[in-house]
Amino acid sequence: MSVRDLTIGVLGGTGPQGRGLAYRWAKAGLSVLIGSRDAARGEAAAAELRSATGSDSVGGADNTEVAARADIVVVAVPWDAHAATLGPLREALADKIVVDCVNPLGFDKKGPYQLEVPEGSAVEQAAMLLPEARMTAAFHHVSAVLLVDVEVEKVDTDVLVLGDDREATDVVRELAEQIPGVRGIYGGRLRNAGQVEAFTANLIAINRRYKAHAGIRITDV
Amino acid sequence: MSVRDLTIGVLGGTGPQGRGLAYRWAKAGLSVLIGSRDAARGEAAAAELRSATGSDSVGGADNTEVAARADIVVVAVPWDAHAATLGPLREALADKIVVDCVNPLGFDKKGPYQLEVPEGSAVEQAAMLLPEARMTAAFHHVSAVLLVDVEVEKVDTDVLVLGDDREATDVVRELAEQIPGVRGIYGGRLRNAGQVEAFTANLIAINRRYKAHAGIRITDV
Repeated sequence: MSVRDLTIGVLGGTGPQGRGLAYRWAKAGLSVLIGSRDAARGEAAAAELRSATGSDSVGGADNTEVAARADIVVVAVPWDAHAATLGPLREALADKIVVDCVNPLGFDKKGPYQLEVPEGSAVEQAAMLLPEARMTAAFHHVSAVLLVDVEVEKVDTDVLVLGDDREATDVVRELAEQIPGVRGIYGGRLRNAGQVEAFTANLIAINRRYKAHAGIRITDV
Repeated sequence: MSVRDLTIGVLGGTGPQGRGLAYRWAKAGLSVLIGSRDAARGEAAAAELRSATGSDSVGGADNTEVAARADIVVVAVPWDAHAATLGPLREALADKIVVDCVNPLGFDKKGPYQLEVPEGSAVEQAAMLLPEARMTAAFHHVSAVLLVDVEVEKVDTDVLVLGDDREATDVVRELAEQIPGVRGIYGGRLRNAGQVEAFTANLIAINRRYKAHAGIRITDV
């Protein structure tokens, strides 16, 4: 199973992270579907991507239709909409590889901080809502600013891919590596995803201190 | 204030992480005190380090004496002993820079996982026990195996330094950079330390999968 033969759906594909990932995958020649709450906004974002990348393998629809049609489904909705978006998709996502990218963060005048998630993490919440899906978590730390920047040829970061299903994490690692510069690195089981999601708060603090778009590399791998 | 003019105390300096850090700092010519529950074990570890590094600026004592005599105090005790070690040191550590390195992790047959800490993280527990200390957190991810290996010239990792006291985090960043290969990078406020501590579980998972001694580098900084 190669990601190059599959259709990648992005729920919340009109937000910065989802749009950035969809742009890179479309540019790499993958078949991509952009989902939005509103089908017309999904289609408008898809039309933009088709013209930005020259690809004709990009479509748009509402999140429900994208979940039904895609082979791999990336969840890039805001944390506020996470449970409400995924709950109704249980049947559509059964047996599919699902990739949760959501960072449950709050912001106040001191900056970002981890929100408490009763299930432990966004992806563990997703796993409870979608018990038949092949659940993984990845792409938390990739700068949306760099992803959408057409001047940026390579994104200098590793993507940690978490999950308990070895084949699913291998496929998502390959999906990550469709983005030039990126390595997909196995990052542990789902029960260790909470700290990976929350680490985005640290990267935001680093970005503010150093005026950077920080990413991470794992050394000795 | 340069770390090269200060005495660095390491509580739990006979454990792998503490011993590895003390070795690197002694080798760099810093003045180091190794603390242990047992003064004789602290002194024995110090004697070993003096002979390994040729430095005569390494001493050993019990944790209480090290806390009293050192200028900067690194906490490298096991999580089980964290609260019990720090509680009685409130006066000795008042106004000193304290560096918490402790990772509250559990292990079962599926590997490592984050333990729940009511205060949020080990360093936030330390901050409650030592309200007058200048609290920071760092060195969670540095491989003890690499630190103690005399064949390893440079340790290929960044050290994230967290804290709410800017001067204290700057001093600890300088302390990190006494280890060849290491950059000390500001990593956020104490309230964002829990995920940095817990991320050690992910690095252990990575080490197992890739047969590595993984570290992290922050990109674009």
